[in-house]
Amino acid sequence: MTDSPVMQVALARCRDGAQSRSFSTAELVRAIDHTCLRADADRGEIIACCREAREHGFYAVCVNSGNVALCATELEGSKTVVCGVVGFPLGATSSRAKAYEASEAVRAGAAEIDMVMNRGLFKSGDYGGVVEDVRAVVEAVKPAAVKVIIETAGLDAEGKVIACVLAKVAGASFVKTCTGFGGGGATVEDVVLMKRVVGPRVAVKASGGIRTRDQACAMLEAGASRIGTSAGVTIVGDSD
Amino acid sequence: MTDSPVMQVALARCRDGAQSRSFSTAELVRAIDHTCLRADADRGEIIACCREAREHGFYAVCVNSGNVALCATELEGSKTVVCGVVGFPLGATSSRAKAYEASEAVRAGAAEIDMVMNRGLFKSGDYGGVVEDVRAVVEAVKPAAVKVIIETAGLDAEGKVIACVLAKVAGASFVKTCTGFGGGGATVEDVVLMKRVVGPRVAVKASGGIRTRDQACAMLEAGASRIGTSAGVTIVGDSD
Repeated sequence: MTDSPVMQVALARCRDGAQSRSFSTAELVRAIDHTCLRADADRGEIIACCREAREHGFYAVCVNSGNVALCATELEGSKTVVCGVVGFPLGATSSRAKAYEASEAVRAGAAEIDMVMNRGLFKSGDYGGVVEDVRAVVEAVKPAAVKVIIETAGLDAEGKVIACVLAKVAGASFVKTCTGFGGGGATVEDVVLMKRVVGPRVAVKASGGIRTRDQACAMLEAGASRIGTSAGVTIVGDSD
Repeated sequence: MTDSPVMQVALARCRDGAQSRSFSTAELVRAIDHTCLRADADRGEIIACCREAREHGFYAVCVNSGNVALCATELEGSKTVVCGVVGFPLGATSSRAKAYEASEAVRAGAAEIDMVMNRGLFKSGDYGGVVEDVRAVVEAVKPAAVKVIIETAGLDAEGKVIACVLAKVAGASFVKTCTGFGGGGATVEDVVLMKRVVGPRVAVKASGGIRTRDQACAMLEAGASRIGTSAGVTIVGDSD
């Protein structure tokens, strides 16, 4: 991720705490979705991810739906919840399949679902279809939180605004920046834009390329309330 | 795809037809799964893909499960069938979700299913789990053909052998080289190896980086009976 001028300002503000509050490790820890989505992540790696999350008290582990049951077992009795991704990372699976995958993930122990918006429907201008696709998942897992990944790198500013509105209308709890598989990553500008569009009752999850405490801090400062990253241990280990 | 020495020999044999037969356009056409799996492929692009497939008489169109119904409508009355991908491209979705996605794709008009092997289970040495994952899809869509993508680029030679055996044991109709999203591509060596392992009653689909008639021809020569490519029109347009 290249640090743009806006990002640099946010990073500086975050670092020196001059114009705004900085974030404590405790605040950072509870904002982190500790993420392991590699296709070839084996049982040992998933268990290690859960142990780290439990040890540090991260908000969630974020894994592919096939790993939800294992994580639910590993995290039993901890305050870390399981988040399962759905239709990931292309978002082009059928709505019925997404809804089923989501409901199975919740049945297996997921408390939250991160789904990928259908970008083909979006690009076709079928906004009703995009809303239905999200709503099918929201309805299938109620009252579990659903985060909608809009894959910011593939959208211009207007597209990001429209995607956020559609997710909000469909009942999403969060809009989320990136899958991490589609190129690009979270930017402060995108988080600011997304938060402005979705307003106070929908949250923003920043994900994609967040590797340092300064970056994580800048995302929270910009309006994100959750950070998706595989570098959580490094981030909370970085000095205050 | 870099042409290795074996590939160069195969290409040369294919071109000059000296040591082996070459393939006619009619043969090539009926081996091609005309593929459009981009996350942001819109309605117009999917329809164009179907028109090309119908016009040239390709064996199938290969699309994400969310596009199967549209393709089934577009291809009605033609000899081109619809192939839907499942658990694509990571293969890390739960088995129940894969099976459901596959059965929904068949219900929507797919005649074939290309599923991705669960590489996490594979890497964990849980071969029973890999077989169950494939079998769940095979059982869900019987008698539709199921192709199992082993993502060759992530496996060494022994891993490729084991993956092919597991797919065969689980009742797959095909083993398939690559998703096209995981790096690497089909090679002649891999096709030869895979065909040798699965034997005469299971077929091989070569996919990933096949862009020219010579490459397609070399894959068929090596033992593939199906070619997954988005360059089908170019391939059959290349001179004999």
